[in-house]
Amino acid sequence: MSEDPRQEALDYHEFPTPGKTSVNLTTPTQTQHDLALAYSPGVAEPCREIAADPLAAYRYTGKGNSVAVISNGTAVLGLGNLGALASKPVMEGKALLFKRFANIDSVDVQVDTTDSAEFINAVRLISGTYGGINLEDIKAPECFEIERALIEQCDIPVFHDDQHGTAIVTAAGMINALEIAGKQLSEAKIVCLGAGAAAIACMRLLVNLGASTENIFMLDRRGVIYPGREGVNEYKAEFSNQTNRRSLADACEGADVFVGLSGSNLLSAAMLSCMAERPVVFACSNPDPEIKPELALETRSDVIMATGRSDYPNQVNNVLGFPFIFRGALDVRATCINEEMKVAAVHAISALAKEPVTAEVLAACELDALEYGPEYIIPKPMDARLLSSVAAAVAKAAVDSGVAQLPYPEHYPLN
Amino acid sequence: MSEDPRQEALDYHEFPTPGKTSVNLTTPTQTQHDLALAYSPGVAEPCREIAADPLAAYRYTGKGNSVAVISNGTAVLGLGNLGALASKPVMEGKALLFKRFANIDSVDVQVDTTDSAEFINAVRLISGTYGGINLEDIKAPECFEIERALIEQCDIPVFHDDQHGTAIVTAAGMINALEIAGKQLSEAKIVCLGAGAAAIACMRLLVNLGASTENIFMLDRRGVIYPGREGVNEYKAEFSNQTNRRSLADACEGADVFVGLSGSNLLSAAMLSCMAERPVVFACSNPDPEIKPELALETRSDVIMATGRSDYPNQVNNVLGFPFIFRGALDVRATCINEEMKVAAVHAISALAKEPVTAEVLAACELDALEYGPEYIIPKPMDARLLSSVAAAVAKAAVDSGVAQLPYPEHYPLN
Repeated sequence: MSEDPRQEALDYHEFPTPGKTSVNLTTPTQTQHDLALAYSPGVAEPCREIAADPLAAYRYTGKGNSVAVISNGTAVLGLGNLGALASKPVMEGKALLFKRFANIDSVDVQVDTTDSAEFINAVRLISGTYGGINLEDIKAPECFEIERALIEQCDIPVFHDDQHGTAIVTAAGMINALEIAGKQLSEAKIVCLGAGAAAIACMRLLVNLGASTENIFMLDRRGVIYPGREGVNEYKAEFSNQTNRRSLADACEGADVFVGLSGSNLLSAAMLSCMAERPVVFACSNPDPEIKPELALETRSDVIMATGRSDYPNQVNNVLGFPFIFRGALDVRATCINEEMKVAAVHAISALAKEPVTAEVLAACELDALEYGPEYIIPKPMDARLLSSVAAAVAKAAVDSGVAQLPYPEHYPLN
Repeated sequence: MSEDPRQEALDYHEFPTPGKTSVNLTTPTQTQHDLALAYSPGVAEPCREIAADPLAAYRYTGKGNSVAVISNGTAVLGLGNLGALASKPVMEGKALLFKRFANIDSVDVQVDTTDSAEFINAVRLISGTYGGINLEDIKAPECFEIERALIEQCDIPVFHDDQHGTAIVTAAGMINALEIAGKQLSEAKIVCLGAGAAAIACMRLLVNLGASTENIFMLDRRGVIYPGREGVNEYKAEFSNQTNRRSLADACEGADVFVGLSGSNLLSAAMLSCMAERPVVFACSNPDPEIKPELALETRSDVIMATGRSDYPNQVNNVLGFPFIFRGALDVRATCINEEMKVAAVHAISALAKEPVTAEVLAACELDALEYGPEYIIPKPMDARLLSSVAAAVAKAAVDSGVAQLPYPEHYPLN
């Protein structure tokens, strides 16, 4: 193992075999008889069953436990448009996380086009292969149109994780942070630095949970978005605010919440100083947050802080959401992942942070203790209870909201 | 396990989990550190490498050991156009065989369209995800146009197994059958019953190996194909024969070879009786051959007979070809599977039948002995030597014909 982090990451991907996953056979294949069942002539029987009833695909094929992680590579991590092929390690990594955390058999697909219509058509045509589709690393604003079209055209859940996964986990942490700060979401003044897919989805979900659009100041590279400003597409316009504030410093004045989904070190100590008492700062830019936690806490000790990093407290990590959201959706064969299911996931993740931490989590985090409070507002990715609690909440919400094709599973809660 | 073969096949597909394959993780994923390598931030390193050099995808992702099995379900087994979804058990079965026989990590993709242009475009757009594409169960004549377009547009091997896999294995058996019969391929009079994708590919390959088109009589449902006849598309027209023969009985008169890729029981005892001495009959219709082997041997004892079935001698089974052809192609990173590689596969399969049979094969087949001759013209699927001999021959042909991007592998021969 190399001591150079870059080389260690490359080695991890190259060995023992290139990539991170392989195919595993789940049925016997030793004898001629086995193979006659797996392929011709035996395979004709499930084919006939599915031809007669498409739902039989869930009984006789891997469809129902599979999620395709699909990208065109136009917004890979924070690296930008690297192209479809260069996004493959991320998509394979996401597939690995689906398996690792929720036992979902996930495969990656790169669709090599920047044309939205072409992308939509290709994904629609192959969608029947899978039980769900996780869109990933597609740039805004195309991602909005692509997701909307695919949700309409596919009869399986389609979920753009950069939007909704990020929004769900952010909202889960935010609810707890505000509770600890003694504030109401409905009254919180919120600065959102960034106006891309994740930022817009985060703000939409916070509004859905009770935040007021009047209290939200969204900023892109040109500053605060307000009516009549140039360079505002229809998505950003949702958060256009009738205000005289123009700069980030203006927006931060007296704000209760800062959500950063933008770039490193954009929030200065001076700006933080001007925020309201007990400010909540989610500085989620990766790898370098909008403000370093050390600087934030040095500037004011009453800040409640989260980042995207695993080496600080309160990591906002999408892996707290997507594996379990899809687990729940697949297990009741939901036709989509609707708002009710997203909100249920928010509350399940949020609630878990208030439960006593298990010995396993403490061991995995190399900590002696961890208690709900400013330094622990959101569960750790290694918390095995996420599977049972989030999947159950999502499945129940799907059933209750009428998008489930199966009843609430008898084998729940999972563990 | 059910004693009803139909139920046994369904049970095989339903248990222990729906389908036949799952995803397996090949890298450590237990610790936070592992996950930071598998996903963010570590995954950024291979992404950057691939963005700088697309070939790095072969080093850091699963691309190079993956084959997508892709269908639109328009010609599923002998069952016809069942649609994309109902073809999924077959495609998953093929993926299973790729893994079982050649350790290739294969996934299935169903493309839900009968429009060739739409199919081609979707497959082209996703092709970069994989190291190779195995097209399957696409009806003729569309399959010819689809394969041609995808070979042109993709930089990885694209192989329609129903055409070329069938042709390769058929030709391998045919070479041996003719040798045993003491005949020359170049002089053999050949009746080909069937004019679909497999039949046309078989005849093309036999011609490539030395057969004369003048000696080939191809028949579709209307009888012998001859110049000016109605219902002859451009593909069938390749085997239009300037002859007065019209019916199957006419065509069989004095013929040396019968290749059946059509339907059950179409070759009568009377027709077989009229064939030349030591006739070679490949009755490959499944599950019921064009003539039952019992009837054929009762009619004349000098027949050399092959079928598509595992319960008779000389099974023409595509699994003798495709796993190893792709293994060889992937291992030298061939850009295509060209004629030289196909011919090399034919000769490798053919040659293996002349080698002494191993104890393992005898045990798997529950036989005491097996010797090259009329009842053993083609290797058994359970012959583990296919991997080393066919993959090596294909890899060598790729290198020699200039379509390999890597040298002949140092780790060959495989076993």
